[in-house]
Amino acid sequence: MEYRLGGERLRVVYRIAARDEAEARVRAEDVCIEQTVEFPEDLVRDPDIRRGIFGQLEALAPAGSSERAALGWDATIGYAVEIVGRELTQLLNVIFGNVSLKPGIRVEQLELPPGLLALFPGPRFGRAGLRALLAAPARPLLCSALKPLGLTAGQLAALAGQLALGGLDLIKDDHGLADQPFAPFRERVARCAAAVAEANARTGGRCRYLPNVSAPAGELGERALLARELGAGGLLVSPGLVGLDALRRLADDDGPGLPILAHPALLGSYVVHPDSGIAHRVLFGLLLRLAGADGVVFPHAGGRFSFSLEACRSLAAGTAEAMGRLRPAFPAPAGGMRLERVAELRAFYDDEAIFLIGGDLHRCADLVAACRRFRELVEEELPTVVRCR
Amino acid sequence: MEYRLGGERLRVVYRIAARDEAEARVRAEDVCIEQTVEFPEDLVRDPDIRRGIFGQLEALAPAGSSERAALGWDATIGYAVEIVGRELTQLLNVIFGNVSLKPGIRVEQLELPPGLLALFPGPRFGRAGLRALLAAPARPLLCSALKPLGLTAGQLAALAGQLALGGLDLIKDDHGLADQPFAPFRERVARCAAAVAEANARTGGRCRYLPNVSAPAGELGERALLARELGAGGLLVSPGLVGLDALRRLADDDGPGLPILAHPALLGSYVVHPDSGIAHRVLFGLLLRLAGADGVVFPHAGGRFSFSLEACRSLAAGTAEAMGRLRPAFPAPAGGMRLERVAELRAFYDDEAIFLIGGDLHRCADLVAACRRFRELVEEELPTVVRCR
Repeated sequence: MEYRLGGERLRVVYRIAARDEAEARVRAEDVCIEQTVEFPEDLVRDPDIRRGIFGQLEALAPAGSSERAALGWDATIGYAVEIVGRELTQLLNVIFGNVSLKPGIRVEQLELPPGLLALFPGPRFGRAGLRALLAAPARPLLCSALKPLGLTAGQLAALAGQLALGGLDLIKDDHGLADQPFAPFRERVARCAAAVAEANARTGGRCRYLPNVSAPAGELGERALLARELGAGGLLVSPGLVGLDALRRLADDDGPGLPILAHPALLGSYVVHPDSGIAHRVLFGLLLRLAGADGVVFPHAGGRFSFSLEACRSLAAGTAEAMGRLRPAFPAPAGGMRLERVAELRAFYDDEAIFLIGGDLHRCADLVAACRRFRELVEEELPTVVRCR
Repeated sequence: MEYRLGGERLRVVYRIAARDEAEARVRAEDVCIEQTVEFPEDLVRDPDIRRGIFGQLEALAPAGSSERAALGWDATIGYAVEIVGRELTQLLNVIFGNVSLKPGIRVEQLELPPGLLALFPGPRFGRAGLRALLAAPARPLLCSALKPLGLTAGQLAALAGQLALGGLDLIKDDHGLADQPFAPFRERVARCAAAVAEANARTGGRCRYLPNVSAPAGELGERALLARELGAGGLLVSPGLVGLDALRRLADDDGPGLPILAHPALLGSYVVHPDSGIAHRVLFGLLLRLAGADGVVFPHAGGRFSFSLEACRSLAAGTAEAMGRLRPAFPAPAGGMRLERVAELRAFYDDEAIFLIGGDLHRCADLVAACRRFRELVEEELPTVVRCR
């Protein structure tokens, strides 16, 4: 080796399934090799590579206080920042590339040193920036989605107008709206943005329309710029569909400079099994934020999906966890939320969230009235007795 | 609804965990809604959307002959091609976007109609094209990787030269080689390509060097073009890191026009659990091929990873399954393969594979001799008695 490493390390805590500590140690040492040199350990004779490039097992302990403690060991592994270089793609690879192929290993924690954090500006707006844009300094932000798929651009625009009239802050495309013949991107964005602008003119509100710009690799940037030109006030993107680094690029200084909501489509396989993949907190709280999401949509407990309350709590904590200069992002609990749960959601997220309610608003014959009710529910003083923090 | 759907449908077979058929039916009908309108079914009154946009449950049957039959039901769901539009990103979303967030649902089969298949040219070379480039009409192709991470560009080039002298067909970067300070992309590619060209000049061989171009979203295309300019004979890319659609774009007519090997980094979470995610055959065999991979690297059974023989067999079948005009891709079994297993691999893959051996070649004091031995092992007549097909 003809170079020197600077000594900074990133740390990943892996939860490792093993029958006993000895097996856990063998598996953890395997991760140190698999995520770096992937080479028979005994054949690497260069002491600088062994010391500098191999992952280093820094700690191994029975998994914490969770109900799964008996099943796992937490292995803290340090990696030289130089093996990442300067790229989010390679950072993801170092954290979980090859070991994603091994069952019983879950990324539980991630700690990035200053040198790595400095490479990623993170959310352009973050919680405070979004609150300022929307003139909503303290209450939860309100969001809904343009649904169902199959409506024409004109029908979606009519819905967008009503949701904006009703006082919502953010109106996002359904994440399945791409550039289909029934609601082509350009027409849809132009009409929905116009409808929201018209409603804002009537109400004096600041509602923003966020079209879905998840698009083919060569078109995503253009589509985002076109969206801004057509009057969009933000962007929706699914990093599971376009790649996490495409999200980062959208949030970059060269991008359209709009707030970004990240949708979890196709990311579920990383989190649905408690003994493998990536912990909710790390994936939704830290990695999506590192990539620049101002808000992260995910299914809150008790809706149509299966995230536990504990997963939602730790995810939300991740969106605000200290990460150098990175701004906190908003958790955006969704996936079948209902008006009757708003008080519960306010207490759970301590008003620091974007509440996303879709279908339930349509249960009321008058959509505008349903949105007004939604707004009232977050403007009421929250009874202090139900605050959990 | 003011438009007409053409009637073509894509079909996805989901394996659904359920206690009984009634529960399986409820879960399957939920998928029909979740993957399309994600809206309370009773609130969708437009008969055209109900008929045309809702997924349609076409069949429900106990899961086939596998050992997991008792655990699952296979639900065949048809989707109107119009909800995909023309984009791979949205196709992935329709297949598995939201339901990836629900445990106990696995994509087992995928059938794309002609109208959708026509949108995706698939592998530019495929099996026959790669064989022609390498003048290897019948034997398995031989590949190794430049390892370990931490070597300098000069050291990697020296290795590449030896592997090429020894008669390998393809020399790929380790997938963890990005643009790190110890082996910067431009220097590494230039030196490794030169070393392989020099070896070819001595041997008369056609060995190709495939640098890893997994890179940030805005740099991938440039890096691939630069690689070609510097003499690369193919590309390695990890679609799990850069997005499946970035792979498609690399294989596109506007791309560098080089053969592409896909690496499975970060894709493991889709396949490691037998009851959720995406079946090996669909992900590695069909989807990576749809995106244009000429070869798909994966860990063969009995190496450092956990794929079963059955998974490997079905994955390999997927790489050649009929898909309109799409060329078959090569399976590239890897992940700790050894020379002593070559005969077994030849029988298992019937010589239709790229064999990737990394570390084991370095167990021999003379790397060139080890490569020559590897080549001999695939040029020997395979005893017909061990052929499995």
